[in-house]
Amino acid sequence: MKVKITGTGLYIPPKIQTAIELAPKLNKTSQWIIEKSGVHERRISDIDVDKMGAIAGREALNGNRPDLIINASGVPKQTIPDTSIFYQRELGFEGIPSFSIHSTCLSFITAFNTAASLIHASNFRKILIISSDRGTRGRNFNEPESASLLGDGAAAIVLEPARNSDSSELLYFDMKTFPKSANLTEVRGGGTNKHPQDPQTTVEDNLFTMDGPAVYKTARKEVYRIMLKALKSTGSNREDIDWVIPHQASKKAIDAYITAGGFKKEKVINIISKFGNCVAASIPMALATAVKQDQIKRGDKILFIGTGAGLSVACALVNY
Amino acid sequence: MKVKITGTGLYIPPKIQTAIELAPKLNKTSQWIIEKSGVHERRISDIDVDKMGAIAGREALNGNRPDLIINASGVPKQTIPDTSIFYQRELGFEGIPSFSIHSTCLSFITAFNTAASLIHASNFRKILIISSDRGTRGRNFNEPESASLLGDGAAAIVLEPARNSDSSELLYFDMKTFPKSANLTEVRGGGTNKHPQDPQTTVEDNLFTMDGPAVYKTARKEVYRIMLKALKSTGSNREDIDWVIPHQASKKAIDAYITAGGFKKEKVINIISKFGNCVAASIPMALATAVKQDQIKRGDKILFIGTGAGLSVACALVNY
Repeated sequence: MKVKITGTGLYIPPKIQTAIELAPKLNKTSQWIIEKSGVHERRISDIDVDKMGAIAGREALNGNRPDLIINASGVPKQTIPDTSIFYQRELGFEGIPSFSIHSTCLSFITAFNTAASLIHASNFRKILIISSDRGTRGRNFNEPESASLLGDGAAAIVLEPARNSDSSELLYFDMKTFPKSANLTEVRGGGTNKHPQDPQTTVEDNLFTMDGPAVYKTARKEVYRIMLKALKSTGSNREDIDWVIPHQASKKAIDAYITAGGFKKEKVINIISKFGNCVAASIPMALATAVKQDQIKRGDKILFIGTGAGLSVACALVNY
Repeated sequence: MKVKITGTGLYIPPKIQTAIELAPKLNKTSQWIIEKSGVHERRISDIDVDKMGAIAGREALNGNRPDLIINASGVPKQTIPDTSIFYQRELGFEGIPSFSIHSTCLSFITAFNTAASLIHASNFRKILIISSDRGTRGRNFNEPESASLLGDGAAAIVLEPARNSDSSELLYFDMKTFPKSANLTEVRGGGTNKHPQDPQTTVEDNLFTMDGPAVYKTARKEVYRIMLKALKSTGSNREDIDWVIPHQASKKAIDAYITAGGFKKEKVINIISKFGNCVAASIPMALATAVKQDQIKRGDKILFIGTGAGLSVACALVNY
């Protein structure tokens, strides 16, 4: 599908929390945090997800008005209405269709493919996709493994039809979901399951929980399969891929694209040590960071890939 | 876009709550409830949204395996993972890509257009869309106007490519979102805004709140506009539309399609008196009910239309 990323935007909250600062809350040492997660520091946002996302969105838009706003985040601002509406309010627009796509950490990849299809079907011509997550709000300090991972951040892109003369294109998309692993990564509250007015609902039900080793075990195998299928289906080999932008799940998960996946280290975008796992915002943050640093150039082939709660795996091969 | 609804499914919870039974909880009379909302009775589900949706989904699938599952509901089962995963688990599948689309009461219309685009782009060939809502879990009995409206229910469709010889088609889609009215319909909890671990978060923050008269005032004007534009853009007049399937927001909102909208009463599908406002499930429930009763036939033109929190308005003109 002939689509082009015509803008990218980033919001990095100014407040830093280092492993040293986090350590006493987790009753662990800073070395333990860094060894387990690979996260040396993460950002803590003092503004909510809508304001964070709108800052990234405004940068991506560069003065233009989109004809659709898609929120592609892991956790919403509130249950109703969906977060896309609050982005639009912060951006100062009225009348632009807005909705949310949710597949936790894979929301950006899912939204990218969906937006490309909507453009391909001539429904829309300038789609703003925003991923904004404030994972530190949901940290469970009694679960140090997952609490050491999460960070806050937001990023956005604008997607438009590519001209025939442009090489920009969504070349491939794939996703698989395995509900047998649904309970490995959860926030059990926030809906009808563990409703807040139910006296049995605990504070922990509303916090993030993840069985990291179990997720890694399943995810590594399924990510490897989906990656090989993407290469085969598009007649590509690893050398054809200029950049791998993985979900920043953990240092171990990112390293697996090098050690098991067979990609060269310098091709795999890695921002986890400075920002942690920013849920759905991780992938577009890594993209926007690499674009800002002039690493990624027009015509480069980017493989977006990762895992999300579900358990789901997904990838998209994009000619930037 | 050449797509065809090849299956519909419905789940109506067996337990009925009449206006007489609800009245004492609201400190109102049953007449007040019926006059305000038009809801004589609603269903109360004892099973959660995933099980409800899976029953509807199984009926719509009729033994087939979908290649994508989209959850299109107003309120999720839980924050993470998204509800589509739990539908898949209940349906006994593994490996099917699954995600959620959220635009509150308009989620079904948004998902329908998105699924049609994904089929048009040859991404998928058999998409299961499920809307399942358990609005009675979020009723605020201190706000009798909105609490008298909500009911539980689920419905599903299967969407596939239409053959060239089929008349089935998505003829038109439109949506507009007006965030200046974002606070008129809310569940403020469940996300980062009023986080459950925040001591300032009240039980009421996690319940449904709506300023019905204010919503009606804005919505009626914007729905009328979007309806006229749909007719004009497709070269249709009211007589060409066989069925209007409005979101079952309230009896007053449905009646407006007749009194202000100019459609004949017998063309406007109305299930609110028996089921109430079932959030995102209302529109596909009305569709599935009319299909079951042999009201809707192949080749009929259906206008799906309504309002949702946001405030958003949307419509889709479908050749069934």
